[in-house]
Amino acid sequence: MSMLAALLLFAQAPAAAVPAPYEPIESDWRTIPDDELLVMRLKGDRTVVIRLAASYAPLHVASIRKLARAHWWDGLSVYRVQENWVAQWGDASEKKPLAPGVPTHLPPEFEIAHFAPAQTLTRADPHSAVSGITADGWPVASDANGHQWLTHCYGMVNVARDADPTSGSGAEMSTPIGQSARRLDRNYALVGRVIAGMQHLSSLPRSDAPMGVYAEATERTPIVEMRLASDLPSAERPRFQYRAADNPRFAAMIRRRENPTAPTIGGGGVEVCEVPLEVRRAP
Amino acid sequence: MSMLAALLLFAQAPAAAVPAPYEPIESDWRTIPDDELLVMRLKGDRTVVIRLAASYAPLHVASIRKLARAHWWDGLSVYRVQENWVAQWGDASEKKPLAPGVPTHLPPEFEIAHFAPAQTLTRADPHSAVSGITADGWPVASDANGHQWLTHCYGMVNVARDADPTSGSGAEMSTPIGQSARRLDRNYALVGRVIAGMQHLSSLPRSDAPMGVYAEATERTPIVEMRLASDLPSAERPRFQYRAADNPRFAAMIRRRENPTAPTIGGGGVEVCEVPLEVRRAP
Repeated sequence: MSMLAALLLFAQAPAAAVPAPYEPIESDWRTIPDDELLVMRLKGDRTVVIRLAASYAPLHVASIRKLARAHWWDGLSVYRVQENWVAQWGDASEKKPLAPGVPTHLPPEFEIAHFAPAQTLTRADPHSAVSGITADGWPVASDANGHQWLTHCYGMVNVARDADPTSGSGAEMSTPIGQSARRLDRNYALVGRVIAGMQHLSSLPRSDAPMGVYAEATERTPIVEMRLASDLPSAERPRFQYRAADNPRFAAMIRRRENPTAPTIGGGGVEVCEVPLEVRRAP
Repeated sequence: MSMLAALLLFAQAPAAAVPAPYEPIESDWRTIPDDELLVMRLKGDRTVVIRLAASYAPLHVASIRKLARAHWWDGLSVYRVQENWVAQWGDASEKKPLAPGVPTHLPPEFEIAHFAPAQTLTRADPHSAVSGITADGWPVASDANGHQWLTHCYGMVNVARDADPTSGSGAEMSTPIGQSARRLDRNYALVGRVIAGMQHLSSLPRSDAPMGVYAEATERTPIVEMRLASDLPSAERPRFQYRAADNPRFAAMIRRRENPTAPTIGGGGVEVCEVPLEVRRAP
């Protein structure tokens, strides 16, 4: 084994002729509807694909769909990249009127309706009483009082807003690019997750300016266009499937993550943001 | 408050005329010895400063000091950057002989000697029985059987190695650039933490090649030189202080992190990798 290989043991499963118990079978892959894929094309032929949490933040996702259909983001930018915190995009001027029919204020949707995670993690994390993964592949948590929420993990997409909890419209979005910002849970609406092209956001130059907002407009990364996959011509449409969590293969994958193998045994458990939420291009 | 400001409430404390209970006082800042600062200069005038964990991984740090004094890293590179995983540097060829007197194998130092954290976090994390911060500002955890270790948080620096647990020399190092890789705890020796210039590693282009190792040598970022601050001319020497954790200000800062304020109250607790470990340039 090379000097590099050992560090990667846990990053990628080795190729195997016979599927291991933790590997998905064909029916574990479920198609993501075209209107739940938001495709952001950045200048320089960099494409970022966001899976929308349509059933968890329906009001915000409805507005995001309207904004995409109005081509609202075209010509705007990624205007904020703060080290070990977030990348954020939308209208840097904060002055562009929203598209017709898009409310400037929405009920917060910081929490979600009742769920039963398909996979419950065996050890509590510091931020919740229970955490786990839904059947359709989203990271969730709940407290002892019946509150449930999607969790702010690396690559999740939330809605920026003003101090007023109802002031998020969906026009300004951001994603954590470092240590998961779990303390934002229940404080910002989560509307999706970056499932392709995350490196185009995470590798952008950081800003030293206050809050990581680029001081100069020339530092921004222009958004060429942002569309629902369902609104793209069929030939250009990305098609993705997620790995469903409602099966013993997924449970075995979690267990495999929980305990590193040689040379020592870890402390057990895995944090909700460490569970891989796999996607693939539809075959 | 602007649309941007709300998202940043927890990122930076507001300026205040009277120090808040969670703000450090002057004596909380302690100088980091010059020979515990490793200064890596990358091509393009990008400087990364690593605080060495000299008292936690003394054998590896001794080798790292020898390699730095032999100018071993000069002309080598950052040769691996894997999305949401690690950036890694050293000798991409894996063939360069180590400097005289530097062992190719060392006892693992995956764990550390007994410690009593200055701050113990109030809620367990999934990877340990107890976690906290040492008086001198390092993230640590322990299990129920008396094992203790430094934790793999964003920006911590570990030693890459072969499958043999004793095969790490300190010549190849890597740092997590995404979700903290806590499952590497007790499996790789931690030798330091990036305390300045982390953005020069985290914003490097990701590689799509296996394990994130750049397929082409031209993709690598050259290391101009890597020196102990103590070996640099006094005028070029960076001087840093860490925020000590052995005081009630630090405890108050943790408590402030544990519970987001309006509009909702979080689940309480904070993960060990979410506690800010502050440094500053020595005044």
